[in-house]
Amino acid sequence: MISLSQVPTPACIIDFDIFKRNCQRMLAVAESEQIVLRPHVKTLKSLQAAKYYAPSSMPVTVSTLAEARYFASAGYTDILYAVGIAPNKLNQLDAILRLAADFTVIADSLAAVNTLIDFAPQYSQSLAVMLEVDVDDHRAGLLPESDELIACARAIQNASNLRFRGVMTHAGGSYDCLDSSARQAMAKQECERISAAAGQLARHGIQCDIVSAGSTPTALAGVSHQGITELRAGVYATFDCVMAGLGVCQVTDIAMSVLTCVIGHQRSKNWVIVDAGWMALSRDQGTAGHHTDCGYGLVCDINGQVLDGWYVKATNQEHGIICHRDNIEPPEALFSYGQVLRILPVHACATAAQYQQYHVVDDTLTVSQQWSRISGW
Amino acid sequence: MISLSQVPTPACIIDFDIFKRNCQRMLAVAESEQIVLRPHVKTLKSLQAAKYYAPSSMPVTVSTLAEARYFASAGYTDILYAVGIAPNKLNQLDAILRLAADFTVIADSLAAVNTLIDFAPQYSQSLAVMLEVDVDDHRAGLLPESDELIACARAIQNASNLRFRGVMTHAGGSYDCLDSSARQAMAKQECERISAAAGQLARHGIQCDIVSAGSTPTALAGVSHQGITELRAGVYATFDCVMAGLGVCQVTDIAMSVLTCVIGHQRSKNWVIVDAGWMALSRDQGTAGHHTDCGYGLVCDINGQVLDGWYVKATNQEHGIICHRDNIEPPEALFSYGQVLRILPVHACATAAQYQQYHVVDDTLTVSQQWSRISGW
Repeated sequence: MISLSQVPTPACIIDFDIFKRNCQRMLAVAESEQIVLRPHVKTLKSLQAAKYYAPSSMPVTVSTLAEARYFASAGYTDILYAVGIAPNKLNQLDAILRLAADFTVIADSLAAVNTLIDFAPQYSQSLAVMLEVDVDDHRAGLLPESDELIACARAIQNASNLRFRGVMTHAGGSYDCLDSSARQAMAKQECERISAAAGQLARHGIQCDIVSAGSTPTALAGVSHQGITELRAGVYATFDCVMAGLGVCQVTDIAMSVLTCVIGHQRSKNWVIVDAGWMALSRDQGTAGHHTDCGYGLVCDINGQVLDGWYVKATNQEHGIICHRDNIEPPEALFSYGQVLRILPVHACATAAQYQQYHVVDDTLTVSQQWSRISGW
Repeated sequence: MISLSQVPTPACIIDFDIFKRNCQRMLAVAESEQIVLRPHVKTLKSLQAAKYYAPSSMPVTVSTLAEARYFASAGYTDILYAVGIAPNKLNQLDAILRLAADFTVIADSLAAVNTLIDFAPQYSQSLAVMLEVDVDDHRAGLLPESDELIACARAIQNASNLRFRGVMTHAGGSYDCLDSSARQAMAKQECERISAAAGQLARHGIQCDIVSAGSTPTALAGVSHQGITELRAGVYATFDCVMAGLGVCQVTDIAMSVLTCVIGHQRSKNWVIVDAGWMALSRDQGTAGHHTDCGYGLVCDINGQVLDGWYVKATNQEHGIICHRDNIEPPEALFSYGQVLRILPVHACATAAQYQQYHVVDDTLTVSQQWSRISGW
């Protein structure tokens, strides 16, 4: 076990206590509503991390087939691949199905459904399918009222070797809700619209076993999630500056940080230069439209204490430039050459993607665990 | 050997003929000026790729110690680590030095130099050091006229187990030069300012064996690079939409693309949804300030022919949204469900970072090679 100050920079750090508290918060929401929680594992993509928020007894959501294989190999059986299936991936599914009987793909068009129908007879067992519904004009999905939704569900039900499981949606528009009343309205809209889709199917004699919705902002909006059977969310396990900016969490709830080291200064410009550029932090600037723009991340000392007003204003591949919002001179005590700092990520999913492992620290700043991560597709 | 149409999406594709032509273009510049070329390998980070633009007989530039170890292990001996050295990395250098005698670090402050002086006696052989100079107010480096530059060079020369090699700079400001006359002016400024630093040192009796400068825009600005001994550049091997936007290359010179598949549509909005989101393309939006904003990339058919006006307007983690600049309806012949497309990256260094390997295609769209990549730090 080594101390955080001995870890070569840059490195991706998980604060274990905060992480566990975040996991617990979402579990408590699902428990209090007596609703199934299907965590999205796309942020950390780590079995060691998932143990704490999505053990293999729980259903999970994945964003790639690489994640599906990785979690299926570890004993997860109910895995929802929540990206519209591409025809060129169909020949990879049987290997996953043999490990995870409830592996489920999504589709949002008759074209996709017909492609599945054509391919499904090649599978060793039936492939579960859910239909993606658009509840907020944000991304993919069929409208709840559309005739194509009924036609797709019918076609799946009638197909050989396909199994219709229900409907799902992701209210990605919730990332644009800048206050809590907007988030609550979006959470209600998400539930109303996805349950409208299930209702529409029911009126045509088609039963949805699963009515699935969720995003971290809507799951934690503080409203009752009526009309859905399961809740999906992912980034809550670590949170990030985007979530803090939306008011979903506090900055002190952010469990991920990038360890970095001061490598230089431009004193005439009040710049501190660190060895965490966009390769270490990601290019995500998701707080640009927020009340407070965090640039490429908020600066903390090695203990994780936020250094008020200091943020990563600019990045190159391996350089970050730290400035104060009021352009004050960087105090030598905080920012001398060689000083180790921690940067709270703007978007945890994007930052985590830049690493092959995470260093997990306890409250004594000792690296108590190293968690590995799966990448690629 | 498989055809491009059989490669699971998303995937990072290198067009071999264009790549070789780009490599040749930079070699020709260096040859015609009789100047040493020290390619930056940070874009592709691949030995198989480097064979074509930076064989082990050539000096190279790296952006991480992981790259340094990888190239040193393959027989490269003159490796410049072009990021200011952090104290916590000093204990990793001896292993590299044992493989690569001319492994070189950079510093731009007395604080950094003094840290090197303190640590250097632990190395099995002398460590080469160059001083970083700021020529364009862009990032790190000492000013050519600064007393600290002289003091740093003197301290290195007098230190035990350190070897002073010269001065280096990177005119990153060239990425903001939106026309060729601005680029030419920046290229001249870069050479004048770095040679001013070398001249200032010479006047104090300190000789620079290497006077190193470069960026792809300034290296290819079409000016004579007077006063420098070596040219550094990296992204030219593949180019990208940023480089095309600056006029450094044509869009048809971009050798990298992301293979992706149409997974859906939102027909009322004229959207095509593909399975390349920011995880596959990166979050880089480096053409946002250009004459033409390419969003997250320009859309080509599977043959690599640019589909005029079509670009990736928005991304989520695994979804890209393709639109036409004039918001026209996507023709079914180009964008039907399952259609395979190629996206030209906005910033090749950021896009390549999202992959563990590259699929190299020849002019028959056959995958003739797969190149691996080193990641991390």
